[in-house]
Amino acid sequence: MDTNSFVLKGSVCYNTSPQEVRCVEGGYAVCVDGVSAGVFEQLPERFAALPLVDCGDQLIVPGMSDIHIHAPQYAFRGLGMDLELLDWLNTHTFPEEAHYADPSYAERAYDIFASDLRRSPTTRAVVFGTMHVEATELLMDKLEATGLATYVGKVNMDRNGGENLEEDTAQSAADTRRWLSDVADRYDRTAPIITPRFTPSVTDELMAQLADIAREQHLPVQSHLSENPSECGWVKELCPWSSCYGDAYDHFGLLGPRTVMAHCIYSDETETELLRATGTYVAHCPQSNAQLSSGIAPIRRYLDLGMNVGLGTDVAGGANLSMFRCMADAVAVSKLRWRLVDESLPALTTQEALWLATAGGGSFFGRVGSLAEGYEFDALVLDDSKIRTPRELGVWERLERYVYLAEEGGSLTRKYVSGRQIDLS
Amino acid sequence: MDTNSFVLKGSVCYNTSPQEVRCVEGGYAVCVDGVSAGVFEQLPERFAALPLVDCGDQLIVPGMSDIHIHAPQYAFRGLGMDLELLDWLNTHTFPEEAHYADPSYAERAYDIFASDLRRSPTTRAVVFGTMHVEATELLMDKLEATGLATYVGKVNMDRNGGENLEEDTAQSAADTRRWLSDVADRYDRTAPIITPRFTPSVTDELMAQLADIAREQHLPVQSHLSENPSECGWVKELCPWSSCYGDAYDHFGLLGPRTVMAHCIYSDETETELLRATGTYVAHCPQSNAQLSSGIAPIRRYLDLGMNVGLGTDVAGGANLSMFRCMADAVAVSKLRWRLVDESLPALTTQEALWLATAGGGSFFGRVGSLAEGYEFDALVLDDSKIRTPRELGVWERLERYVYLAEEGGSLTRKYVSGRQIDLS
Repeated sequence: MDTNSFVLKGSVCYNTSPQEVRCVEGGYAVCVDGVSAGVFEQLPERFAALPLVDCGDQLIVPGMSDIHIHAPQYAFRGLGMDLELLDWLNTHTFPEEAHYADPSYAERAYDIFASDLRRSPTTRAVVFGTMHVEATELLMDKLEATGLATYVGKVNMDRNGGENLEEDTAQSAADTRRWLSDVADRYDRTAPIITPRFTPSVTDELMAQLADIAREQHLPVQSHLSENPSECGWVKELCPWSSCYGDAYDHFGLLGPRTVMAHCIYSDETETELLRATGTYVAHCPQSNAQLSSGIAPIRRYLDLGMNVGLGTDVAGGANLSMFRCMADAVAVSKLRWRLVDESLPALTTQEALWLATAGGGSFFGRVGSLAEGYEFDALVLDDSKIRTPRELGVWERLERYVYLAEEGGSLTRKYVSGRQIDLS
Repeated sequence: MDTNSFVLKGSVCYNTSPQEVRCVEGGYAVCVDGVSAGVFEQLPERFAALPLVDCGDQLIVPGMSDIHIHAPQYAFRGLGMDLELLDWLNTHTFPEEAHYADPSYAERAYDIFASDLRRSPTTRAVVFGTMHVEATELLMDKLEATGLATYVGKVNMDRNGGENLEEDTAQSAADTRRWLSDVADRYDRTAPIITPRFTPSVTDELMAQLADIAREQHLPVQSHLSENPSECGWVKELCPWSSCYGDAYDHFGLLGPRTVMAHCIYSDETETELLRATGTYVAHCPQSNAQLSSGIAPIRRYLDLGMNVGLGTDVAGGANLSMFRCMADAVAVSKLRWRLVDESLPALTTQEALWLATAGGGSFFGRVGSLAEGYEFDALVLDDSKIRTPRELGVWERLERYVYLAEEGGSLTRKYVSGRQIDLS
């Protein structure tokens, strides 16, 4: 008998489109061999023999994908929030990341990161490590043990990293190949992703070699794009040949539907079209973009263009790990952008924020981010009974409140990735 | 023996100015008869006989004042976040507030509000009720029982409230007098505050009568000011005689150092000078101002001018009750304001946000918001041990992290108001 087949009964809620949400009170979400067989108002006879988990009145929603987070920065989230991107990198981030040359530091730090991520609403994540091969493998070991599904990248950076955090170009490429060989076939749900830090940290020569490796080994790619005006100006100086910052990646073949580019706040028309045409994923990181004084990305425009967009907490640019907080932040900054930057782009709705956190980012992992039939069965069960109100609320209203108030009384009681239950203790 | 005299030992942290914070690791915060006798590195001999509460390594900080919050809106926080101010008022707020004509609804709703506020980091609050006298008295009864110190207002609104939420002018004034007579001498730490909702809800005639009552009975005042461009335009139509929106209150003598005006996002030079010259308090409500698409107030400018400024959660314009979240939001939006609106006004620091939440808003209650000698002994004890990191952190870094990560593992373990311990169960 397959223990990966079962039924969850509760108040089910998931997006059927970016704008629309289906809610079924007292519904049945059916998992067969780790894949959703659909959500039903009455349990179909053919599933009657499956074990049933009665979640009572709790909310059942799709798992959430955090498609941009820096594992080594978890150690200093909430600190040093007084600087802009480039100064913040030099003052806080690079010195912290240099510690990961020491495996015992990495062990302590990644142990905390992995166990906190395990207990968070995140089911899948696209993760930056550091440039250190040993520490990155250790991170992958720990993430594999959580049961979550992740992409993890050894970071490449062969310029502008300062004394303790800069690789030799050839060594960076060689280390990357060594790392990939080490981790090949080592994990069930943890996979490598090619990770040039960002153009200011990676020479054209290394960028070309990383693109070769990604192509040869059919690997996905993650990096940063158009986060901050000073960064954008710097890339223009570093790559005078490029038509836009995005072109500094695309020129090497690094954009496409298996690439995540974080931020994309200052993408002009050329760059937006490049991202759209290549199917590149935009990781929207609303809290980080506020905390590092970067700005607010035009996510409404990206959605309207049918682009691939998801959410990232971008710890430690963003301090908070919770994808619910990330959703609330996405809605809030979209309203400020409407008011302060461009009234032609309406704010995001909470429904759209839920879509970004689930199906939007989830699709980077395949058929992930919905409870509709055929999707990997990634699910969260949420207890909102301590978020009290005298009102009678419908399922959607309860979930809407949970997005804003998860941290004030919400409780994640169960979590599944491809039908496997995650230990939340 | 006075049980209101004791010593707290732990990592003490409080502002000595808006920009500066004093931290004493393993320090002694001394409370004598409910008033701070100071914070010491070694316990002075004269306090050696006082009972000592050893808080170990926990953080000890001043209590926090939420100087703008709507108790009746607590029931729908996190809902209906898709509208701007005026539509939100008509669609969500006014219909909800109309329920408070029913004392049994008010009983259920205010029971939840008061008990959640009791367990929050807030020690003092300036609170809007509804226009209903009975419900407002019930709210005051419940707040008194929490042990917190609050100002609570019966709301006045004799125009533009719609069918179920609009008072007759004479009745509004008479109800206010009846309410004030009912609550006179009824409470130790719960006091009435005159509360014209905002100019669009209050005729000039009623505004004048409220000003008379405030003057006769020496009462403080709270209202809203310059929150939203449509609101500001409306006030210009309603009070064509006023030099600015603020003048629509000042004309009646309603501004001054015992008045809180929430928001002040769109205050022009005339209005800012009016607020400064009168010593009126600005309640900065960063999350609400984002969620209702209002904008971002120029708090840096108000601080530079030496104005009275504090923080408000403005539930339910803001969804979150936590003053730590409010601080983090204040810093975040100040960075977006710097980037998107006015690069001449630097962002707020976390130190300044702490000052706003403690001494800034606290001074509305008298000598409140610091652990320095002579202040009312309002204090919080915070356990940050579950906000794990592999780093060694100093006291200020721990507190800085707590501001951003309170909701992800922080725990309020003790709370005092004027030396009286609050039940957090």
